[in-house]
Amino acid sequence: MEEIQDNIQFQLTDELIEKVEVLVEEENDKDLKALLNEYHHADIAEILDDLDNDDAVYVIKLLDSETTSEILMELDEDIREKILKNLSTKEIAEEVEELDTDDAADMIAELPEERQAEVISYIEDHEHREEIQELLAYDEDTAGGLMAKELVKVYETWTVAGCLRRIRGQAKDVTRVHSVYVVDKHDKLIGRLSLKDLIISKSDTKIADIAKDNVDWAHVNDDVEDVAKVMAKYDLEAIPVVNDDQILVGRITIDDIIDVIRDEADKDYQLAAGISQDVEADDSILKLTKARLPWLFIGMFGGLGAASIIEQFNDNMGNFIVLLSFVPLIQATAGNVGVQSSAIVVQGIANGTIDGKILKRLFKEFLLGLVNGVAISLVAILITHFIFGTPYIVSITISIALVAVIVMAAIIGTFIPIFLDKRGIDPAVATGPFITTSNDVFGILIYFLIAKLILGI
Amino acid sequence: MEEIQDNIQFQLTDELIEKVEVLVEEENDKDLKALLNEYHHADIAEILDDLDNDDAVYVIKLLDSETTSEILMELDEDIREKILKNLSTKEIAEEVEELDTDDAADMIAELPEERQAEVISYIEDHEHREEIQELLAYDEDTAGGLMAKELVKVYETWTVAGCLRRIRGQAKDVTRVHSVYVVDKHDKLIGRLSLKDLIISKSDTKIADIAKDNVDWAHVNDDVEDVAKVMAKYDLEAIPVVNDDQILVGRITIDDIIDVIRDEADKDYQLAAGISQDVEADDSILKLTKARLPWLFIGMFGGLGAASIIEQFNDNMGNFIVLLSFVPLIQATAGNVGVQSSAIVVQGIANGTIDGKILKRLFKEFLLGLVNGVAISLVAILITHFIFGTPYIVSITISIALVAVIVMAAIIGTFIPIFLDKRGIDPAVATGPFITTSNDVFGILIYFLIAKLILGI
Repeated sequence: MEEIQDNIQFQLTDELIEKVEVLVEEENDKDLKALLNEYHHADIAEILDDLDNDDAVYVIKLLDSETTSEILMELDEDIREKILKNLSTKEIAEEVEELDTDDAADMIAELPEERQAEVISYIEDHEHREEIQELLAYDEDTAGGLMAKELVKVYETWTVAGCLRRIRGQAKDVTRVHSVYVVDKHDKLIGRLSLKDLIISKSDTKIADIAKDNVDWAHVNDDVEDVAKVMAKYDLEAIPVVNDDQILVGRITIDDIIDVIRDEADKDYQLAAGISQDVEADDSILKLTKARLPWLFIGMFGGLGAASIIEQFNDNMGNFIVLLSFVPLIQATAGNVGVQSSAIVVQGIANGTIDGKILKRLFKEFLLGLVNGVAISLVAILITHFIFGTPYIVSITISIALVAVIVMAAIIGTFIPIFLDKRGIDPAVATGPFITTSNDVFGILIYFLIAKLILGI
Repeated sequence: MEEIQDNIQFQLTDELIEKVEVLVEEENDKDLKALLNEYHHADIAEILDDLDNDDAVYVIKLLDSETTSEILMELDEDIREKILKNLSTKEIAEEVEELDTDDAADMIAELPEERQAEVISYIEDHEHREEIQELLAYDEDTAGGLMAKELVKVYETWTVAGCLRRIRGQAKDVTRVHSVYVVDKHDKLIGRLSLKDLIISKSDTKIADIAKDNVDWAHVNDDVEDVAKVMAKYDLEAIPVVNDDQILVGRITIDDIIDVIRDEADKDYQLAAGISQDVEADDSILKLTKARLPWLFIGMFGGLGAASIIEQFNDNMGNFIVLLSFVPLIQATAGNVGVQSSAIVVQGIANGTIDGKILKRLFKEFLLGLVNGVAISLVAILITHFIFGTPYIVSITISIALVAVIVMAAIIGTFIPIFLDKRGIDPAVATGPFITTSNDVFGILIYFLIAKLILGI
């Protein structure tokens, strides 16, 4: 046996990219194949992500469709789209033939509508074609849209020996066998078995006697995020999917769920940072602008709103100018507190750790705001009065305003996500610029109202 | 066979909690056991998370240690700590006996130091005790700290038949068999086999002939986040862990990796929102304050810095007041752009999609900032001049400042995370309040410098 590989150490280097580019340039197919054969298809996908499109298409056309279909699925979506544009319908159909049904359906769904039917008609394997068509009918955010048709199914009336024989047949098409699903004669899901259970049981045992009947399952129309939560909570590596009649129609594996979990976390993170749409650093400036500019406009309108509030209090006096110079302090504090409060609520909702007691939570945020507010205020009084030489009464005004603004921002930041969630709206939209902006405006209004009360400006 | 359960539908209701509370109150052990037996241990953990401590301890003492050990591992860390305080050393040791080595080591590691040795000495199974002690020696953020000792290992010289026989023995201790690891006579890892491969091979086949030698592995000292990246990238469900001599010492499974991925995403999200430490909405006000207050101080010092910058330009004239009222606009815009830029870079670094070309990326952000800046500025000119009646020259000043500030914020937001990452510092700390605050201060400085140039204030 050869020395084993350590994939932890794969590093995409500029030298490697250059080596591939030179071999493509020279059309040195033999060395290129030999070089790429050393790498896992996920590594080759990383290399291709960095090549220009013509070179990537050259590599894809050079390698076997068994390898290239896996490479294509690992590529960045934009790059896959560009490469598929350069492949003929027949070539795409060949790639699709090699993929499991779930990946095959995903690849076809990304094609322009007019090409989809054409590619499907080119798929030679009749069963594979029908299964892909079935999967394409489901919404991509449902269990049906995520599941694969590949699974190992046995009937409750079989014996372990008969079962192992049949599994040998079915398992060749299934990349990984997590569980064997037990069905009744109507193909209704009634239990499951691990391969381990089969291996350690005597060969004449009846399946019905060793099958576990507490099998978790998902319905084809379940939301994938709910499926992800269940699989993570119960540590499942695969979950069978059934239709309305409880008939076993597919299987979702944990590797696909990991992608769902990461996408969801990425989406929440981006919304908190004021980026809508699922964008990546490598996307085009147009796409990035579309994702970012709307949030900047929200911030801009908040800033203009703040300006018109300040105008209302305009009083060309010394204290007013001093007060104005502390607007950034009020604003930064309100924004920060609002984002902190909303982020923790949004995360709690996402992880399912927040329950319904709104009033209790608001009261807690009120206390938390008070504690943080007093701490910040005391330091602010000391610095403004003793270091900046701000008049004592103005320092007091600023400090009182800080406490009020922090408490308000904490409550708004907590209330809005909970409120949105109750209304069925993704609470993550209420983090980031949205909460910052509303807190900016309210914060400045509170600040000047308190100043008017105390200083009479 | 009974009707199968649908765990997707488990809902923690106030009624259920109340029912459990009443049964505990009445010390109605029989009905309580019968009620809880209907639920998965992860569901019981959710119920216990919501009970008060005495009730939770009552339930734990009532149920079998086989179930309670699993429940304990699913509990919120704070609640587990409180419950363990109420259990005797011997009772904890009994729970530990039931757990796999990785969970057992985690539970012991959470105990106060003086109890750890005592609990270990009470573990009756000699091998289990030694394995736990071995695991406790590793850093919790390394592969060694995450792995379990439970795995199925076969020698390359065996046949499939002999192998299946030995697996039947080993597999009873291993909850899930993902892969069978093939070792040489020195216990060095040299390959792997799936159970499927074993089942579909003839019984007299030599293991060496069917073992796959391209097995991915992790070193005991590898960082768990790197292991998570590799497992997600190559869709692995388990990875063997080796020591310096390439000897197989443990195995990491995907369910533990999912926790690593979620914790990492949560941590990045919280840092972006200005929350350090791993806190949850249900934590105490003290813990939440510790996590949030430091970031508020960063924001406060930024606000005070901005105030002292404004002081430098103090000029008691009409235009100055008008300029001051647009400080919130400048500040909100600078903060939002900075967070957007940094978040996308931090996420790119976390997902491994950002490569080394800093200058290219900065130039792209420069262009992106220019596009966004011009769009925001044009709208700002129209609104300030035509709706607010701001003098034309002041509107122009504000707009030019907006473009400059947006470009600056985009570049700072991009540069700092990349710079930190190169220095080996977690770039996620540079999102949120950190980037907002620095951009606030720089933004206001640029704004007044431009105003001084144009308006001569």
